[in-house]
Amino acid sequence: MPLPPADPGLPTQPVRAAIVGPTGFTGALLVELLHRHPAAELTYLASHRDELPDLRDEFPKLTGLLDDDLAQCRPIDAGAIAEAADVAFLALPHTAAMAYAPQLLDAGLRVVDLSADYRLLDAEHYRQVYDTPHLDTDNLAHAVYGLPELFRDDLPGATLVANPGCYPTAAALGVAPLLTHALVKPDPITINAASGTSGAGRAAKPATSFLSVNEAFGPYGTIGGHRHQPEIAQTLCRVAGKPRGEIDPLFVPHLLPIDVGILETIYLEPADAEVTEDELFEAFADAYRDEPFVRVRGVDDALPNVKHVAGTNFADLTVRRVTTGNDQRPTVVVIVVEDNLVKGASGQAIQNMNAMFELDETLGLR
Amino acid sequence: MPLPPADPGLPTQPVRAAIVGPTGFTGALLVELLHRHPAAELTYLASHRDELPDLRDEFPKLTGLLDDDLAQCRPIDAGAIAEAADVAFLALPHTAAMAYAPQLLDAGLRVVDLSADYRLLDAEHYRQVYDTPHLDTDNLAHAVYGLPELFRDDLPGATLVANPGCYPTAAALGVAPLLTHALVKPDPITINAASGTSGAGRAAKPATSFLSVNEAFGPYGTIGGHRHQPEIAQTLCRVAGKPRGEIDPLFVPHLLPIDVGILETIYLEPADAEVTEDELFEAFADAYRDEPFVRVRGVDDALPNVKHVAGTNFADLTVRRVTTGNDQRPTVVVIVVEDNLVKGASGQAIQNMNAMFELDETLGLR
Amino acid sequence: MPLPPADPGLPTQPVRAAIVGPTGFTGALLVELLHRHPAAELTYLASHRDELPDLRDEFPKLTGLLDDDLAQCRPIDAGAIAEAADVAFLALPHTAAMAYAPQLLDAGLRVVDLSADYRLLDAEHYRQVYDTPHLDTDNLAHAVYGLPELFRDDLPGATLVANPGCYPTAAALGVAPLLTHALVKPDPITINAASGTSGAGRAAKPATSFLSVNEAFGPYGTIGGHRHQPEIAQTLCRVAGKPRGEIDPLFVPHLLPIDVGILETIYLEPADAEVTEDELFEAFADAYRDEPFVRVRGVDDALPNVKHVAGTNFADLTVRRVTTGNDQRPTVVVIVVEDNLVKGASGQAIQNMNAMFELDETLGLR
Amino acid sequence: MPLPPADPGLPTQPVRAAIVGPTGFTGALLVELLHRHPAAELTYLASHRDELPDLRDEFPKLTGLLDDDLAQCRPIDAGAIAEAADVAFLALPHTAAMAYAPQLLDAGLRVVDLSADYRLLDAEHYRQVYDTPHLDTDNLAHAVYGLPELFRDDLPGATLVANPGCYPTAAALGVAPLLTHALVKPDPITINAASGTSGAGRAAKPATSFLSVNEAFGPYGTIGGHRHQPEIAQTLCRVAGKPRGEIDPLFVPHLLPIDVGILETIYLEPADAEVTEDELFEAFADAYRDEPFVRVRGVDDALPNVKHVAGTNFADLTVRRVTTGNDQRPTVVVIVVEDNLVKGASGQAIQNMNAMFELDETLGLR
Repeated sequence: MPLPPADPGLPTQPVRAAIVGPTGFTGALLVELLHRHPAAELTYLASHRDELPDLRDEFPKLTGLLDDDLAQCRPIDAGAIAEAADVAFLALPHTAAMAYAPQLLDAGLRVVDLSADYRLLDAEHYRQVYDTPHLDTDNLAHAVYGLPELFRDDLPGATLVANPGCYPTAAALGVAPLLTHALVKPDPITINAASGTSGAGRAAKPATSFLSVNEAFGPYGTIGGHRHQPEIAQTLCRVAGKPRGEIDPLFVPHLLPIDVGILETIYLEPADAEVTEDELFEAFADAYRDEPFVRVRGVDDALPNVKHVAGTNFADLTVRRVTTGNDQRPTVVVIVVEDNLVKGASGQAIQNMNAMFELDETLGLR
Repeated sequence: MPLPPADPGLPTQPVRAAIVGPTGFTGALLVELLHRHPAAELTYLASHRDELPDLRDEFPKLTGLLDDDLAQCRPIDAGAIAEAADVAFLALPHTAAMAYAPQLLDAGLRVVDLSADYRLLDAEHYRQVYDTPHLDTDNLAHAVYGLPELFRDDLPGATLVANPGCYPTAAALGVAPLLTHALVKPDPITINAASGTSGAGRAAKPATSFLSVNEAFGPYGTIGGHRHQPEIAQTLCRVAGKPRGEIDPLFVPHLLPIDVGILETIYLEPADAEVTEDELFEAFADAYRDEPFVRVRGVDDALPNVKHVAGTNFADLTVRRVTTGNDQRPTVVVIVVEDNLVKGASGQAIQNMNAMFELDETLGLR
Repeated sequence: MPLPPADPGLPTQPVRAAIVGPTGFTGALLVELLHRHPAAELTYLASHRDELPDLRDEFPKLTGLLDDDLAQCRPIDAGAIAEAADVAFLALPHTAAMAYAPQLLDAGLRVVDLSADYRLLDAEHYRQVYDTPHLDTDNLAHAVYGLPELFRDDLPGATLVANPGCYPTAAALGVAPLLTHALVKPDPITINAASGTSGAGRAAKPATSFLSVNEAFGPYGTIGGHRHQPEIAQTLCRVAGKPRGEIDPLFVPHLLPIDVGILETIYLEPADAEVTEDELFEAFADAYRDEPFVRVRGVDDALPNVKHVAGTNFADLTVRRVTTGNDQRPTVVVIVVEDNLVKGASGQAIQNMNAMFELDETLGLR
Repeated sequence: MPLPPADPGLPTQPVRAAIVGPTGFTGALLVELLHRHPAAELTYLASHRDELPDLRDEFPKLTGLLDDDLAQCRPIDAGAIAEAADVAFLALPHTAAMAYAPQLLDAGLRVVDLSADYRLLDAEHYRQVYDTPHLDTDNLAHAVYGLPELFRDDLPGATLVANPGCYPTAAALGVAPLLTHALVKPDPITINAASGTSGAGRAAKPATSFLSVNEAFGPYGTIGGHRHQPEIAQTLCRVAGKPRGEIDPLFVPHLLPIDVGILETIYLEPADAEVTEDELFEAFADAYRDEPFVRVRGVDDALPNVKHVAGTNFADLTVRRVTTGNDQRPTVVVIVVEDNLVKGASGQAIQNMNAMFELDETLGLR
C-alpha cells in the first residue's frame, strides 16, 4: 500500500522519557503508557535501589514491552539521564523525590514529579504536613501544579510539574466548578472517599495483605487527618481565590477491596436555597464541555462507578440537589470517580508531559 | 463420663420455628442459625413458589443440616405451620409478607417479619414509601420494632416483631445514643453508607452480576431517595422524641464488591462546640456497656471494618470529633459496621425471637 | 514542530470496521481496541436487538470513545454495513452468526466471526456438538481458522475467518509445539482449565451472579463434556497430522472469581523417557521465538499468572518435566495463560484482521 | 421455665484447652471454634513472641469472645499450661512445634499439633522434605495421624495427634476409598489443586499482597515439588497397603483469589476398563455413608464448590468416569472441596480433640 500522509498531530522527534523509580505501581504504569504513546519513547529506567533490578523481574507483565537493555535499571545519574532523555518522571516516594529533582533539573531535564514533594506551595506548610523540612525550596518556588483541567495555562514550557495526588485530583474536579460559579458555600465540605488498594503502594504490609483487604471495607488512617487533605484544601482555596484555611474540607478515606479506583461522595451546601440542579450541571458543563478526560453524567445516565474508569484517564462525575426534613433543606451531592493510578497518577503525568511539550494532551491516553 | 447438670439457661422444650420464604439469603441463614441454636428447632419450611423446592437444591451448602423431610418446602398453610411451630420467620419480599402475616398470627403463631411491611408505624407513610396500600393495618398497630438495644422492653411476649432493615439497624445504633444524650444536633445528619451485594437479594440481575460488581464501587438507586431512609428517620425521631420529619438524615448508599457487610460513615454536628470526644464515647459506653452484640472501638483500637463482623451478630462502632478550617469547626464522625445478613437481618431476627420467648438473647448467636 | 515522516507501517487508508453484535463483552472490547488502532476505524455498530441500543447506555465506560452517531446501534443491514465498512466482526452468539455471515460476505465484506459457527471443519461434527444443523456449509468450506501463531499463512486475503475459542487458543498454543516436535504422546492429554467469569457471557444468570462467583471456585458444566473440547481436539489433530478422534484431550474447566483470564494446566506423557526439559523449552522457542504475543517463561522466570496477561494480547506459557514414584515416571506439565477476552477473543480478532489486510499483526494491540 | 434434662452427649466437665501459637489464622479460628463448643473451654493462650500480644489487637474480630485475662497471651510455660488445660493445640510453624511438644506432653497435656512436624512417619523422610533433622523422634514414634474418616480407631486416648495438612486431607478423602476398593490404579494419580490465600499464612509477603492475589490465578512453588505431596503419598500408600514410593501422585497447587477453600481435581485411571461410575459412587457411599462431615454429591447434585463448604467442617466430593478418543479410554475424575482452615486445619483439630476425649465428633462443629 502507498504511504499515508504524516499525522500532523505528531512531532518529528518523539519526546524521550526516563522514569526514575520505576519499581512502584505508578512507575510500571508509566512504562505501559509510554510504550503505547505515539510521540514519546521510554529511554531510561533509573532506580535508587542498591541492587539494580531488571524491571521485568519486578513486573512479569512488562516482559515483551521492554528489551534487555532498557529493562535493566541503571543508577540515578542525572548526567546520563539527561543525555538519554528530555523529561524525567520522578516516581519515588515522598521526600525522596526532592533529593533528586534539583540535579535532574540542573542537568537540563524537564521533570514531572509524581510524589507530593512539590504540590504544597509553601515550604513551611510542607514541613508541618510531612514532618520534615523541604530540601528544595528554590525549585518549589517555580513548580507548576499539573492539573490540566484547572491550570492548563501553566503547563506549556514548564520545567518542573508537581503531579497532583489521586484524591486531590478527584476532589478538585468535583468541587472547583461549583466554587468558581459560586453555587456552593466554601464551608462545610465533606468528602467521603474510597480508594482501591493500589493507592497504598506496592510494599508488602499486613494492612494490604490479601486476607486483610479482601471482603473488607473500612476507614483508614487518622479520621480527618489524611495527608492528602491539605493538598485538596490548597487547590480549592486557589480556585476560589481564598487564603489558606478558609476552605478546609473534612476528608475521610476508606480502603476498597479492588485494585484500582477512587470514588468521592462530596456533600456541600448550596450558596442559597434557590440554586437548582440545572445550574449545578451547567457549571460542570461550562468547565468540562471540551475536556477530553472528564465525563459529566446526567441525571438519566448511569451513576459514576469506578469500574467505568478503570484503566482509563477519565474522571466521571455527576451532581444532585437533594432535600431533607420538613423544611426541605437542600444539600448538593457530587460523585466523582477516577482510576487512582491513571488520572490520579501516571495517566495525568503523561497528560502533563503532553501539555509541557505542547502535544495534543490525549496522545497515548485514549 | 457422668452426665452434666442441666444448663439453667436453656428451656425444657426448644422453641419450634418455621421459616416462610426460605429461598432468599436471609432464609438460608436462618436455617444455619437455627441449626446451631441450643434452644430452638427448625420444624417447617414454607415457600410461596408454585414448584416447591428442596432447599438443598437451592443452597447446596445446607446439605447435611437438613434431613429429607425438613428440606422439602411445603405450601404456606397457616394451620399446618401453627401445628408444627411456635414462631414463624417471614422472609418474604416486601408487600408479600403482609399478605401472610395475618393468617399466621390468627393461627396462633408468633411472627418475626424480616420484610419492611411492619416497620413504618403509619400505614399512610408506608403507602407513600412503598407505593402500595398497607393491607394489614390491624396488626401494624401492635407490631413491635425489634431493635433490642434500643427497644428491648417491647419484646418479651410480643406476637409480631418487625425486624429492622440492615441500614436502619446500623444507623440507629450509631446515632441514637448521641441524640438521647443531646450531644449532636438532630439536623443535618449525613449517612454515607456502603453494603455488600447480598443486600440486593438473590435474584439474578444485571446490576448484581459478577462482572458488574467485581472490581467496582459506586452509589446506587436514587441519590437521597433510598427506601430505607424513612425507617432510619422514624427511629431517630422516636429515640429523640421528635415528630416525623424533624430528623431526616441524608442517606447515600453505595454497592461494595463483597458478599456481606454494611459500613456507615455518619457526619453530625455537635450540639455545641464544647462537646468533647470523651463525652461522645461516654454516651456510647452508657448505651452499650452491657450489650452483648455492640462493640465500641476506642481511639487506640482498630477502626471498624466490615470484615471484623462478617458472619457475626456484632455491630462495631467508633466516634471521632474532628475540626476543620481556621475557625476549628467541629464535626462528629461515627463509623458503624455490621453484617447486613446477620445483625442486619437473620441474626437480629434470632435475637428478637430469643427476647420474645424470654431466652438469653445471645443463644445461638455466639 | 515540523511534520514527521510518515510511518511506513501504516496504510494510506484505515481499514473501516463494523461490529455486528456489540452488546456483549467481546463487542465492547472490540470498540476499545478499534478506537486505539492506528490503522483501523470503527464505522458501524449493528445490533440484532429489536430495540436498538445506544452502546454507551450498555457500557458507560465507552462514553467518550463513541460519538452520538456511531454509538447508536443500527439494524443488521448487510448492504449498509458494506457501504460503511471493509470488515465486519461478528460478535453474535453461536448459531446466530451463521445466519448473518452469508449476506455480509455476499455484500462484499470480509468477516471475522467470534462465534463458534465456523470453527469446526465438518458440518456434521458441528451438528453433533451444537445440536443444530449448520446453516452455511458453503462458507464453512472456505473459512479460515484464525490462530496466527499456528496457521498464519491462511490469513492474508482471507474473506471469512473463524476466530478461535478462548480455551482452544490456550490449549493449542500450549500443546502444538510439543506434538509437532514429537516430544509428547498424543494420548493421554489432560487439560485442567480455569476461566474468569467474563467467559460465561454478559447475560444475568444465577450461576454468574456476584454472590455465586465471589469467594467461590468449582468445576462447571458436564465434567469431560465442554463444547470447546472438540475444537481443541480438532486443532491438535490438525497440527499433528492425525485423523479426528486420535487426539482427544480430557478437558475440565472451572470458574474463577475474577473478571478475565484463562489458565490451563496441561498434563502430558513424554514421547519417551529420555525427553529432557531443555528439549521441551526448545520446541517452544522454535515455535514462538519471533511471535510478538507469546512469551515463554523459563525455569528461572515468574510462573505464568493470569494477572500478567490481563488486558493484553499476550499468551504466557512454561513447561516442566517432573517425575514421580520409585520408578521416576516422567510427566510433562505445561502452564498457559491468556486474557480470555483479548488473546482469547477480541484481541485475536484484531490480530486476524491485521493479518487479513496484510498489516503488522501487532497494530492496535501493544 | 423448668430446667431441661441434661444433654446426655455432654461431659460433666468441659475439656480445658490451650492454644500455643494463637496469632496465625488457624489459632484465631481455634479461638472461635472453642468459644462455640458446648463441651470445651479455652483457658490459655501461649505465644512464642517476645512481646506477648493481646490477641484482640491481632484479631479485632475476636473482641467480645475473649475477656481481658484470657486475651492476653502468656509465655509457653508447659507447667502453667498443664495446670490450666487438658489439651494443647500447637498452632506454631513447622519445626517450631517439635521444639515444644515434648515438654507439653511431659507436663501431662494431650497435644494436637497443627504443624507438619508429626505427620511423616519416618524421621529421615522428614529430614529430606523439611531440610532439617527431626528433633523429637521419641514422640514421633507414637504420634497418631488425625484423619478421623480414615483412621478413627487411633484417636480415643491418643496423647499426640498430628493434624493433617489441608491439601492431604482433601486428597486422602478423595482417593482413599477408590484405592481400598481397588477401583483405580495406584499410578498415575494427578492432583490439580487450588487453595485460598489463607493457606499461605498470615505474614505479609509480596506474593500474598492484595495486588498480587486479587484478579490473579496461577501455580506456585516448584511445579511437582510441594511439601504437602509426601504427606499425600504416605497416606495413600498406607490405605492401599503399599510401601513408600509406590503411590506417588503428581501434585500441582495453584493460588486462588479467595480467603478460604481448597479444591482438588484428581485424575486417575480405573483399575480396568469395566469399572462403572456406579461402582465409584458406591465406594464413596461405603466409606462416608455415616460420616457427619463428608458429603458425596451425586450426578444430579450441584458440583462441589469451595463456597459450599466455606466456614464449615464439611468436605464435599463427587466422581465421574469420562471417556476420550476413538478408543473410549476411561478416566476417573474426582472433585473434592473443603475449607482449608476448618476441615483442612482447625476444624479437624477440634474433631480430633473430640475423638481423643471420646466426645461426639461433631460437637462445636455444626
